[in-house]
Amino acid sequence: MKNIVVIGGGTGTYIVLTGLKEYPVNLSAIVAMSDSGGSTGILRDELGALPPGDIRRALVALSQSPQIIRDLFNYRFENGGLGGHSFGNLFLTALEKITGDFEKAVEEAGKILSIRGQVIPVTKDSTHLHAILEDGTEIAGETNIDIPKHDGRLRISKVKLKPKARATKAAIDAIKNADLIVLSPGDLFTSLIPNLLVSGIPEAIKKSRARLVYACNLTTKHGETDGFDADDFVINIEKYLGGRKIDYVVAHDDFPSKKLLAKYRKEKKEPVLIPKNKKNHTYKLIRTDIAATEHFFREHFFRHDPHKLAKVLIMLTEFENVLSFLETEKS
Amino acid sequence: MKNIVVIGGGTGTYIVLTGLKEYPVNLSAIVAMSDSGGSTGILRDELGALPPGDIRRALVALSQSPQIIRDLFNYRFENGGLGGHSFGNLFLTALEKITGDFEKAVEEAGKILSIRGQVIPVTKDSTHLHAILEDGTEIAGETNIDIPKHDGRLRISKVKLKPKARATKAAIDAIKNADLIVLSPGDLFTSLIPNLLVSGIPEAIKKSRARLVYACNLTTKHGETDGFDADDFVINIEKYLGGRKIDYVVAHDDFPSKKLLAKYRKEKKEPVLIPKNKKNHTYKLIRTDIAATEHFFREHFFRHDPHKLAKVLIMLTEFENVLSFLETEKS
Repeated sequence: MKNIVVIGGGTGTYIVLTGLKEYPVNLSAIVAMSDSGGSTGILRDELGALPPGDIRRALVALSQSPQIIRDLFNYRFENGGLGGHSFGNLFLTALEKITGDFEKAVEEAGKILSIRGQVIPVTKDSTHLHAILEDGTEIAGETNIDIPKHDGRLRISKVKLKPKARATKAAIDAIKNADLIVLSPGDLFTSLIPNLLVSGIPEAIKKSRARLVYACNLTTKHGETDGFDADDFVINIEKYLGGRKIDYVVAHDDFPSKKLLAKYRKEKKEPVLIPKNKKNHTYKLIRTDIAATEHFFREHFFRHDPHKLAKVLIMLTEFENVLSFLETEKS
Repeated sequence: MKNIVVIGGGTGTYIVLTGLKEYPVNLSAIVAMSDSGGSTGILRDELGALPPGDIRRALVALSQSPQIIRDLFNYRFENGGLGGHSFGNLFLTALEKITGDFEKAVEEAGKILSIRGQVIPVTKDSTHLHAILEDGTEIAGETNIDIPKHDGRLRISKVKLKPKARATKAAIDAIKNADLIVLSPGDLFTSLIPNLLVSGIPEAIKKSRARLVYACNLTTKHGETDGFDADDFVINIEKYLGGRKIDYVVAHDDFPSKKLLAKYRKEKKEPVLIPKNKKNHTYKLIRTDIAATEHFFREHFFRHDPHKLAKVLIMLTEFENVLSFLETEKS
């Protein structure tokens, strides 16, 4: 079986994992550990726990347990001292306290959730994300970058971790043995790149013989990636890859409906464009239908379809030579 | 296989179940639902949940999961808004919210904990325990009776539930099919008798062809059973049995060490004596060694040994005729 490593955190990673777990591959999810908002933030502050939120989402994505167990992990208490806490977060934090080791806690939670594959925290060091805006302002904490209290018109020029963090051995081993590494869609600076800031990760990716794929975001995000086209996403990711280049970019080949476009524009989000005149890049572009039918989710969303996206990624591991039937082009 | 029903709540029931689960019997635990203290009390007040504490203890007792899962269920958060909450209580409450049904929640938790047998809430009606003292004072709430803010010198003359509660069908069915019903040791008025206050339970016990055994407490409890001998326990239980009499009382045949006795006396607890001159009772008394070696628990305790007690109970289901080798006597 081929070894696929998915790197990210958040909803984009959830979607990639949900699609890939249906295939007979060895699946590893490497998940960012610099989340600091909501239930996760409270557990970090009050209990000194490592951030469980993104780990929980990846575990639920890979779970083969009955729906009720998966619902339980995502359940949020509504009132009182517990209000806002996700049950799955409490689960991971309690296991961390009992085992004294967050990785062990994730492993045990994986057993209880009967997951396919493994979920790996990118680091076990307690660290926070900082962003430097183009005017030099420094924003501390993932939640303050993610929900921009800063002026959304200023671009993020750099992100870093404080204090520095070292990668877990499991994360490095997974990358070392990978046949395909998937960089998840999702929040670029607050979910994907935080993994690449961890010491050992870019070095391992650079050494790896795996193909490196970026499943490109469908929309920009206000305060993080306003005005970004596909190349801007790639440029920013490659900044943190220590010289390694992305081999493939998988992008959607169409626009959402006008109605959906209008809805996203209210949130200052735009579809990510594929530039006609490529900048100095070496990736192969795969443009195909990877978006969910607009009714796929209960509400109308412009999002990746887990199954369509997984099919393309699996083809990249198995049938690279026959990819010509997809509209590919060398940039 | 014989059907054994254990009725109670709290630590005494935990010990009885821990011992019995090693035997090839169909085991059902019927558990009181009027707890109102600590983590359970907060969940009742803030989230409108049914009380999970005693259910959790019974589930852990019957669990065949690895120790880490059982530790997880008993884990208590130490700080912040979660401080004092038992993880297992949060587990049951979240499942209750998701399923909309406490019995279903207990069933699902039982699957996750791989329990032997079943745990049955005695009622699903939200109710509270009230005690009337011999001077007529009424104490509201299990936690106020359990931890006596009232004058410990006044005896409890009566307990009742407010509002009234009806038994679950599962509890009545279990009693109907029982070969042996075990009344757990533990807090008489706050753990055992609350089950007998639920409408349908004494009626079902009365109709049942099962032998009815009371595993008698080893010590009295200040504020609840000061000065009680074995007969006093039986008299008080039978008050709530609607005419049914206890068939067997299993009692310990020795005293604890002087050192341990002194320790218990500091908490105003005394060994429960077996009166020489029996009052008007019909039970058979089985006196044998059912106490744990004083080093059995990590600290020194005068408590039932789960395995010794279970052996006697199993003999009562299987070998009633050969019980003569035990020191039995008709009262």
